[in-house]
Amino acid sequence: MKNEKLWGGRFEQSLERWVEEFGASITFDQKMAEFDLKGSIAHAKMLGETGIIDKQDSETIIKGLEELLIEYQQGKLVFDVSNEDIHMNMEVLLTEKIGSVAGKLHTARSRNDQVATDMHLYLKYHLNLVSQKLNHLREVLVSLATKHIETIMPGYTHLQHAQPISLGHYFMAYYSMFTRDSERFTFNMKHTDISPLGAAALAGTTFPIDRELTANLMDFSEIYTNSLDAVSDRDFILEFLSNASILMMHMSRMCEELILWCSNECQYITLSDTFSTGSSIMPQKKNPDMAELIRGKTGRVYGDLMSLLTIMKSLPLAYNKDLQEDKEGMFDTVETISVSIDILAGMLETMTVNEEKMLYSTEKDFSNATELADYLASKGLPFRQAHEIVGSLVLECTVAGCYLQDVPLTRYKELSPLIEEDIYDVLQSQTAVKRRNSFGGTGFEQVLHQIDLAKKELSVG
Amino acid sequence: MKNEKLWGGRFEQSLERWVEEFGASITFDQKMAEFDLKGSIAHAKMLGETGIIDKQDSETIIKGLEELLIEYQQGKLVFDVSNEDIHMNMEVLLTEKIGSVAGKLHTARSRNDQVATDMHLYLKYHLNLVSQKLNHLREVLVSLATKHIETIMPGYTHLQHAQPISLGHYFMAYYSMFTRDSERFTFNMKHTDISPLGAAALAGTTFPIDRELTANLMDFSEIYTNSLDAVSDRDFILEFLSNASILMMHMSRMCEELILWCSNECQYITLSDTFSTGSSIMPQKKNPDMAELIRGKTGRVYGDLMSLLTIMKSLPLAYNKDLQEDKEGMFDTVETISVSIDILAGMLETMTVNEEKMLYSTEKDFSNATELADYLASKGLPFRQAHEIVGSLVLECTVAGCYLQDVPLTRYKELSPLIEEDIYDVLQSQTAVKRRNSFGGTGFEQVLHQIDLAKKELSVG
Amino acid sequence: MKNEKLWGGRFEQSLERWVEEFGASITFDQKMAEFDLKGSIAHAKMLGETGIIDKQDSETIIKGLEELLIEYQQGKLVFDVSNEDIHMNMEVLLTEKIGSVAGKLHTARSRNDQVATDMHLYLKYHLNLVSQKLNHLREVLVSLATKHIETIMPGYTHLQHAQPISLGHYFMAYYSMFTRDSERFTFNMKHTDISPLGAAALAGTTFPIDRELTANLMDFSEIYTNSLDAVSDRDFILEFLSNASILMMHMSRMCEELILWCSNECQYITLSDTFSTGSSIMPQKKNPDMAELIRGKTGRVYGDLMSLLTIMKSLPLAYNKDLQEDKEGMFDTVETISVSIDILAGMLETMTVNEEKMLYSTEKDFSNATELADYLASKGLPFRQAHEIVGSLVLECTVAGCYLQDVPLTRYKELSPLIEEDIYDVLQSQTAVKRRNSFGGTGFEQVLHQIDLAKKELSVG
Amino acid sequence: MKNEKLWGGRFEQSLERWVEEFGASITFDQKMAEFDLKGSIAHAKMLGETGIIDKQDSETIIKGLEELLIEYQQGKLVFDVSNEDIHMNMEVLLTEKIGSVAGKLHTARSRNDQVATDMHLYLKYHLNLVSQKLNHLREVLVSLATKHIETIMPGYTHLQHAQPISLGHYFMAYYSMFTRDSERFTFNMKHTDISPLGAAALAGTTFPIDRELTANLMDFSEIYTNSLDAVSDRDFILEFLSNASILMMHMSRMCEELILWCSNECQYITLSDTFSTGSSIMPQKKNPDMAELIRGKTGRVYGDLMSLLTIMKSLPLAYNKDLQEDKEGMFDTVETISVSIDILAGMLETMTVNEEKMLYSTEKDFSNATELADYLASKGLPFRQAHEIVGSLVLECTVAGCYLQDVPLTRYKELSPLIEEDIYDVLQSQTAVKRRNSFGGTGFEQVLHQIDLAKKELSVG
Repeated sequence: MKNEKLWGGRFEQSLERWVEEFGASITFDQKMAEFDLKGSIAHAKMLGETGIIDKQDSETIIKGLEELLIEYQQGKLVFDVSNEDIHMNMEVLLTEKIGSVAGKLHTARSRNDQVATDMHLYLKYHLNLVSQKLNHLREVLVSLATKHIETIMPGYTHLQHAQPISLGHYFMAYYSMFTRDSERFTFNMKHTDISPLGAAALAGTTFPIDRELTANLMDFSEIYTNSLDAVSDRDFILEFLSNASILMMHMSRMCEELILWCSNECQYITLSDTFSTGSSIMPQKKNPDMAELIRGKTGRVYGDLMSLLTIMKSLPLAYNKDLQEDKEGMFDTVETISVSIDILAGMLETMTVNEEKMLYSTEKDFSNATELADYLASKGLPFRQAHEIVGSLVLECTVAGCYLQDVPLTRYKELSPLIEEDIYDVLQSQTAVKRRNSFGGTGFEQVLHQIDLAKKELSVG
Repeated sequence: MKNEKLWGGRFEQSLERWVEEFGASITFDQKMAEFDLKGSIAHAKMLGETGIIDKQDSETIIKGLEELLIEYQQGKLVFDVSNEDIHMNMEVLLTEKIGSVAGKLHTARSRNDQVATDMHLYLKYHLNLVSQKLNHLREVLVSLATKHIETIMPGYTHLQHAQPISLGHYFMAYYSMFTRDSERFTFNMKHTDISPLGAAALAGTTFPIDRELTANLMDFSEIYTNSLDAVSDRDFILEFLSNASILMMHMSRMCEELILWCSNECQYITLSDTFSTGSSIMPQKKNPDMAELIRGKTGRVYGDLMSLLTIMKSLPLAYNKDLQEDKEGMFDTVETISVSIDILAGMLETMTVNEEKMLYSTEKDFSNATELADYLASKGLPFRQAHEIVGSLVLECTVAGCYLQDVPLTRYKELSPLIEEDIYDVLQSQTAVKRRNSFGGTGFEQVLHQIDLAKKELSVG
Repeated sequence: MKNEKLWGGRFEQSLERWVEEFGASITFDQKMAEFDLKGSIAHAKMLGETGIIDKQDSETIIKGLEELLIEYQQGKLVFDVSNEDIHMNMEVLLTEKIGSVAGKLHTARSRNDQVATDMHLYLKYHLNLVSQKLNHLREVLVSLATKHIETIMPGYTHLQHAQPISLGHYFMAYYSMFTRDSERFTFNMKHTDISPLGAAALAGTTFPIDRELTANLMDFSEIYTNSLDAVSDRDFILEFLSNASILMMHMSRMCEELILWCSNECQYITLSDTFSTGSSIMPQKKNPDMAELIRGKTGRVYGDLMSLLTIMKSLPLAYNKDLQEDKEGMFDTVETISVSIDILAGMLETMTVNEEKMLYSTEKDFSNATELADYLASKGLPFRQAHEIVGSLVLECTVAGCYLQDVPLTRYKELSPLIEEDIYDVLQSQTAVKRRNSFGGTGFEQVLHQIDLAKKELSVG
Repeated sequence: MKNEKLWGGRFEQSLERWVEEFGASITFDQKMAEFDLKGSIAHAKMLGETGIIDKQDSETIIKGLEELLIEYQQGKLVFDVSNEDIHMNMEVLLTEKIGSVAGKLHTARSRNDQVATDMHLYLKYHLNLVSQKLNHLREVLVSLATKHIETIMPGYTHLQHAQPISLGHYFMAYYSMFTRDSERFTFNMKHTDISPLGAAALAGTTFPIDRELTANLMDFSEIYTNSLDAVSDRDFILEFLSNASILMMHMSRMCEELILWCSNECQYITLSDTFSTGSSIMPQKKNPDMAELIRGKTGRVYGDLMSLLTIMKSLPLAYNKDLQEDKEGMFDTVETISVSIDILAGMLETMTVNEEKMLYSTEKDFSNATELADYLASKGLPFRQAHEIVGSLVLECTVAGCYLQDVPLTRYKELSPLIEEDIYDVLQSQTAVKRRNSFGGTGFEQVLHQIDLAKKELSVG
């Protein structure tokens, strides 16, 4: 019976089907099929090189595995839930192909180090992909920033108009966030790019294996120095899920703003039809669905993080079956962030900015109040007094239904003799933005400077 | 073109495929296919009854939907990701079947109330199933408790032997927990068994619909009284995920103990082979995999809860696309708890208790120290002094390598003249358990009483 | 030495101070001081009544405890971290007051059932307070709804204008949410209002205690039927934290909207100065700080929930020190939700609604598009076709820079001969709202009906 | 009136007290008092240097701030909740001290960049402390490992005895985990050691500030390049909370094992009295309270992480009051991990290992089954067949009540002629451990090698 459990010697009864399905992971761990085969090929090579098994057996096994790899890529392999997981399935398939010599492949390894190897390979591969996608998103932002250095928009705190800012500056703020995300994924690689293969079940092996050789064959930079740690460590996944959570948080912030900006009340941007959908009942609707969905998917990734943190809590060494639950969350998060990054980049690239609306909204508010206060402070008034004067004037204007730029010079003079005719230029949004030229500020020069730095980073990275 | 978006009128460009896939939910919301059809049938009936559409059109539509239901149950329906979700897919399939009259089905409803209806129906159905499964688990526990009223085991606090207890008492503790779980799911029904249908997009409809009729046809007990609330409420799912989290927590506690009890150090129970697995490398291993997996799946359900809480946070009324992310976690948790309950019940029913090991371990410890202290206190010594005396004696025994039952009467007399020959009976585990006969205590009579109460609850419930 | 640990008999060395502080809970569990004393008084009475201790000793103890209660309420008690927790501190204070007879109080109980009792009493008390506060909030909403039945506002889905709705309807949606919250806290009482006292350390006691008597004295409705469960159950707190999380989620949604409505872009409401704050740098700012803070505090309560779920996961029976970590989160959540409810109610009561702005915004959008589609459908056009026609017309208007009410009848006639002069009335926001008169809809009659139902609920509750 | 709000100019009514308390952060943000003063001193210096304010004013302000710093360190400063936060309190105290010139300090900054600066300074300081504590813990582990290279203990998978391992190897596994934790905190510094000062409210300032100067004065290595990002970024705290969560997870795993090892069933270690506590009711108890508490505190830190992730989700730029909720969790986690590391180190340093018990337990199990399988495989039998044979033999022994080392050679010969007399040596625990000499394995040489590497790391780090 080909599907007999490979560890069945000790057992008297067979597993009932539904229990079997509960315990099986093949429905999801087949996502690591290629990595499993590659790891096995490296292991088989090493077994042959070190003489642990016959060179010829080694070659037979490798040939079989390579054929399986091709068949897998062609979509020809069929997995069976009775064979529990990807490792057992592959061994059964190999046995069918090359006979009982396949049994020698599992010499000097265990599923514990094998599955850890697969996961390291899987995540290493996807960390690279994620970084590339993030790079593209950062490039999109830099490109938008470049285009919008002089586009004026309302800058908010507490969702209140605070001070007018450059839209380019706004894009560069997100550039900074995604750059940190990128750095985190790069650091994540450090604890991912390590080979656990050879740790065996938990304690290493009595066979004279060569862990450096397998690590090299699989292109790992380092080797776990402690076998217990090698099979029970899931830090690299937790780091990934944490990093992904922070990334999603950043995207949720941007999406929240894009959704706001699409509202009837703002109308600051128009999303392209490709990234919008309609309503089955309200014909006029053009919904920023993609932005909402990314925002919603933040919960999904947070959940995956919380899941694995919970699983790992209080787990004794070394391997426990609880760890089987580490995979789906990782796969799910990999897929979620990968496509979310692409969608966000696409949305940004194709949206239209309604520049006049943005500018106009900064002229029908009091977001130039700081200009007046700073103006007074720069002429020697203690900032607190300046702040007080402007506060009262804003209240006065609100009652009168006008803005600071509408207040006559005579009234200004009454408030403070320090105020001169030039105040009206100072109160312009354009001037306000331009003059905020401190390092990192929203002044046009500063935004340009940020863009230059970013371009250098991107060309190197 | 049959797959053209049904809300496409307003749009100039078509969605790119990968964006479409990002937004589509058909891959998972097809789990609600039957409920979607049942809801549509009720809606169609009502549209006909109220004259909103022709009686004949209504009948044509119903007949079409009923055919789809049968085809679905036969596994014949094929869904298409271009049709976004289960609702659109069904409408397209209906249109193929009965022509353009199918377009009348969506009169006076929206996908917003439709999807809410589907979810209420789905969860209502599964709440009932979960309760039945929990009832079975509770029966298993009562049956085990009945068998083990007089089986003595070490009772723990801080994982230290504290006082010997009845194994039946232990099982009844979990019975209590699962009873509360059951009560929570029953309460959960209150906020699930409400019909949102007729809330339309968010504000109700101008058509003279009859919401009571549809509610009755779908067997709902109540109707949402506010349409905004009807389409944006996900409390019933959050309640479910919270309840499921608490349930998993209870199961994780029991599984943790089962795992401990299987260890070489305890050997208090032996799991049946059906609920154990072996190792690919260590031939002697018989692992409590199922218990570990349930414990691990706790993380999964916590994650699903945290996910939806995150999604809902700060979401403005009424429907937002973020809400599409509410489904997978609900499905996942329904499946996880359903099978976990069954597995746990199966594991308990088939395990063997090693009664001698359990008893023996209570005789090679100091878990009878409270007996001595209570003995002294019952003879008038303030409890704190009694506690002090016994504490010192334990230390003395530890050094001497003996237990309290080994201390000669002469030594006891030195410690306190209140101690008599009967102390040796008092120190027996059996006696200790039997005498702890306060209400709810571990004394045999009390355990029997608990079992009687439980049987009454179960026969009623 | 008064501060000697009361369980010190068994120990050879004394705890170092910093370790002591790590283990101590007195810094926070003193919040339960009154409940601890009340529980002790009940216990002492029972010990006297049952003859477990002398009646006179019982009375001495009770008198001492009652004095401590008064001193506590007068702020005179001083607690010491060396005495670990509130229970030990109280016993030491009692001993100072009445001498060694105080040692008899701890007969037939343990800190395990004592702390559980304190927590049940604490939460029971606060559940009632929270419900009262929620009732007030619900009354505020009903009162606002009554005032604003005919105030028209834009109803949103996807943060896009969807259909005009009644502001009263909006308030009643939140009324529904807070009503469910209230029901959850009421259900929460069921698993809170149970006495664990008498469970002792884990197994009950050999003393002839009367648990019904103590339960009655403390005003508990029920008694735990299983002692293991009694000391290890924290379900009642988890229920509370889950319910509080859902409540905070509701408040975060409303606060998000209030914040939006205060923005320059909306200006739909003005918060009172009492519930706003300014900026240290921008004199014009009037920030909806309180709403933001409530929204932010959602994270805090979610965190408290996740914390306790994590703590409880995999914890073997019965008491473990991990459980000491259950308190701070509960206290924190009690305080957070209590004040948040009050703040939200205060904010709502004192805010000003800018009715014209709200109405105006529904006239400069396409939120009457459904009216046109429904109009066509009600005249017999399949809804899908109607939807299609209106979609195209919206696009046409967008290009032309006009709204549906601006389209001339001739153009309407071209689109469909079904359209008559009465369409212009149908397209009015006021009409649109009024006509959405299906049960639970936003039509004025329906809102009034909801208000009537709510008033009945509130007068009963 | 000294307590008048400093941004009061714009407001007509004063805040009610309880609303004020809800909004105030002074009760907790005073933990950053020293950092706030240091930041202000740097800012004042810069204002003087750049001529933004008079040199003399600058000096007056600095002198005032330095006096406040000393008074603070002497515990003399009294804060007032009416002054909202630490920044306002300090400004009021400064004004009391030096008069209205204090008002000039707030020129060219905002509380938004000020609070960000405080938090960066606070966390930078504590990251260093945490790393030092972690280094100490790692040294303790290396020292224990060195002592226990040849101590044999049961190695577990699935909490079942798997293979005997070196206790030194076990300690080094945790060394590896804490080393990764340490590396994460080091990386965390990268995004913490950046100065936000000068970002002002959100957009930079029109004053000619020198951000490099203030950064240098505060000893920051970098400066935020985008002002929006500077005031709204909380990544550094999220990284910290994630890292702390992973650290707590590691500690929870070790504590779980220490708790197991203290159980009556294991008795592998004895904790020192300093790190144990007793029971108020059971005189024999010696509870591993500290280990349990650390395990429990894992929930607390996970909660703090989830809290901030929730808070940040969907928050629009730049500053929102929600961010006030970022502090308590950070403080709480800093304190929790700091003391938990110390307690764990102390517990490890003072515990006694019962080496005979550990060794003995590896001789009364089948954890040498892999030895037999490997023995057969090394003699050429395919591993799967070897595994099968040994599995059957284990079952045979279990029935017979003996272990592999008790099986007579004749029986072995029947099973396979490959088995020779030397099998009995191979089956010894000592031999089994020693021979597992693959890189990273539990063999004594390998453990020694790990220790050597670790010592090098620690001397450098």
